Amino acid sequence: MNISQLLCTTALVTGCATQSGPATAPLQIQSQGSFAVGGVVQQTPGRYDNNQPTAAGQSFHGDHLYAFYQVPVQPKPLPIVMLHGAFQSSRSWESTPDGREGFQTLFLRRGFSVYLVDQPRRGRAGNSTVATAVEPTPNDQLFFDQFRIGQWPKRFDNVQFDPAPDTLNQFLRSITPNTGPYDAGVIADAMSALFSKVGPGILFTHSQGGGPGWLTAIRNPNVKGIVAFEPGSGFIFAQQDAPEPMPSAAGTLAPEIVPLVDFLKLTRIPIVIYYGDNFPTTPTAERGQDNWRVRLAMAQRWVAAINQHGGNAQLVHLPEIGVHGNTHFLMSDLNNREIADLVGQFLTAQQLD
Amino acid sequence: MNISQLLCTTALVTGCATQSGPATAPLQIQSQGSFAVGGVVQQTPGRYDNNQPTAAGQSFHGDHLYAFYQVPVQPKPLPIVMLHGAFQSSRSWESTPDGREGFQTLFLRRGFSVYLVDQPRRGRAGNSTVATAVEPTPNDQLFFDQFRIGQWPKRFDNVQFDPAPDTLNQFLRSITPNTGPYDAGVIADAMSALFSKVGPGILFTHSQGGGPGWLTAIRNPNVKGIVAFEPGSGFIFAQQDAPEPMPSAAGTLAPEIVPLVDFLKLTRIPIVIYYGDNFPTTPTAERGQDNWRVRLAMAQRWVAAINQHGGNAQLVHLPEIGVHGNTHFLMSDLNNREIADLVGQFLTAQQLD
Repeated sequence: MNISQLLCTTALVTGCATQSGPATAPLQIQSQGSFAVGGVVQQTPGRYDNNQPTAAGQSFHGDHLYAFYQVPVQPKPLPIVMLHGAFQSSRSWESTPDGREGFQTLFLRRGFSVYLVDQPRRGRAGNSTVATAVEPTPNDQLFFDQFRIGQWPKRFDNVQFDPAPDTLNQFLRSITPNTGPYDAGVIADAMSALFSKVGPGILFTHSQGGGPGWLTAIRNPNVKGIVAFEPGSGFIFAQQDAPEPMPSAAGTLAPEIVPLVDFLKLTRIPIVIYYGDNFPTTPTAERGQDNWRVRLAMAQRWVAAINQHGGNAQLVHLPEIGVHGNTHFLMSDLNNREIADLVGQFLTAQQLD
Repeated sequence: MNISQLLCTTALVTGCATQSGPATAPLQIQSQGSFAVGGVVQQTPGRYDNNQPTAAGQSFHGDHLYAFYQVPVQPKPLPIVMLHGAFQSSRSWESTPDGREGFQTLFLRRGFSVYLVDQPRRGRAGNSTVATAVEPTPNDQLFFDQFRIGQWPKRFDNVQFDPAPDTLNQFLRSITPNTGPYDAGVIADAMSALFSKVGPGILFTHSQGGGPGWLTAIRNPNVKGIVAFEPGSGFIFAQQDAPEPMPSAAGTLAPEIVPLVDFLKLTRIPIVIYYGDNFPTTPTAERGQDNWRVRLAMAQRWVAAINQHGGNAQLVHLPEIGVHGNTHFLMSDLNNREIADLVGQFLTAQQLD
């Protein structure tokens, strides 16, 4: 190995091990670790007896989030915080179901510090201040439909999802339950605490994470831009802009109302929303797909409202720019490097990198 | 920077960025990612209706484990698999509560590939085939006592636990609940599947993880050595060797019986058990400490039984070799680098590195 190969292999020269380099170039990690942030402490009245302990006089720490971070050498100024969606954990952003590099590692290779979140009451942030029951709920086939791999048991012809049986097995085992009631406000509180700790940064959200993502940016000016992958709920509007609820074969999607002063805070940062493929253009009885028809329509109204108030939001429906076959999990589909390139172009255009 | 500095900084020369190097030398990660392994699929009878979905005809994937892995450049031949204890996740091995590097990163720096496990029904492996209730249970003060930080609210004078208030906050937020009933057999099945996937390796266990750890080594000959930090339950014996149950102020600790042929499998690999400080030498009413008196005594009987059958086990009670103040969490105490050095010496002596 000569010196230039050595330098490139070890990525001390900027760019060698980023998107332009081979996937096998070593990552150069300056530091990594994990921590909790946010949450509350509940105190039970009474006096603690060390040798006959009961709940009396004891406390409970809960409703925090968990974050795992990695800082590459010579990081770009703004870190990326990645927030998963429903039924998921940080696992969403790690390896793809077919074992390739996910957005955690792809964006490290692009020079960003990356923070992966398990939201309050999920994954490693399991301590919830509110009780719940966890029951094995058979939903594999529903997820196959709703996450647009296909119409069970048939895959969409163009789907960007590896056909090997173990890939679907891995995907279904990335699912993990809530350990307390879902509460967007609790999540946004913890996320805001994270941005206070981390400083200015970029927020990536997936699916259900979209809603708490908007609330986080309202709460904390350290959110300098948002990349939302298929936001699925929590579309917030000022009353004056709110569209009518939108019925679908999967239920009715209603806007959520926030004060105009809060909504306007979202007009100060660049926002991009991506949706994948196999959306119906007109109402259909196919529940899994029709669910997304109204989400796309609501997101279009949302982007229009942001921009009407002077904001900087855009919606990219991938098939319209020639990118086909994406499921609900854009960041782990077979073409996830192409999606990462699109996001990279957005971040560059908005001077966020 | 000259070439020798460059080589050393980037750790391409063995040893430069390991224990002897500065903590700030970049990690060189060849690959990283995560996956599920093991588990079962439950199938609900009936026919799935895509557009009116119920449980009928649907399946559920559960009882797998989750693993996050990192492979350094030029890894040592045997990876290390780290299994957490009760109320914990992989978080146990990541950053310490005071934010320093934990065993995940310290052993990567020593050149080992590291696999961190969330056991079935915990953390990101939350999908359990058996239902449970998750309730906020105030146990902070009990944990302070039982994990031997001190006797609440007083810390032990020599305790290797950072006194900053946020350190205790971080520690208490590393706690995360079971999402299904604890089942050592379910855990050992998934762990054995992991060792089948990973190949020959070294197993680190903490606390409650000790019991499933022994069972994993019985099930899978790919376990080439075990380092058990404060095993707290699941002490398995052949009937002929089993000691009497041991009463303590925290309840009675009983041996668990396995067939002799299984027990003997543990005599074929090197095993080391470490316990920390502030154990009482005689029975006491102090519940948190007395709990460990009998665990240490049981572990001593266990090591004797292994060695009596020709095995290679040792127990290191750290104060006896001049290492003082360790809590139940040896791997994240203030002296965790010293503990890592001890473990490193064991692995070298047993030709496991």
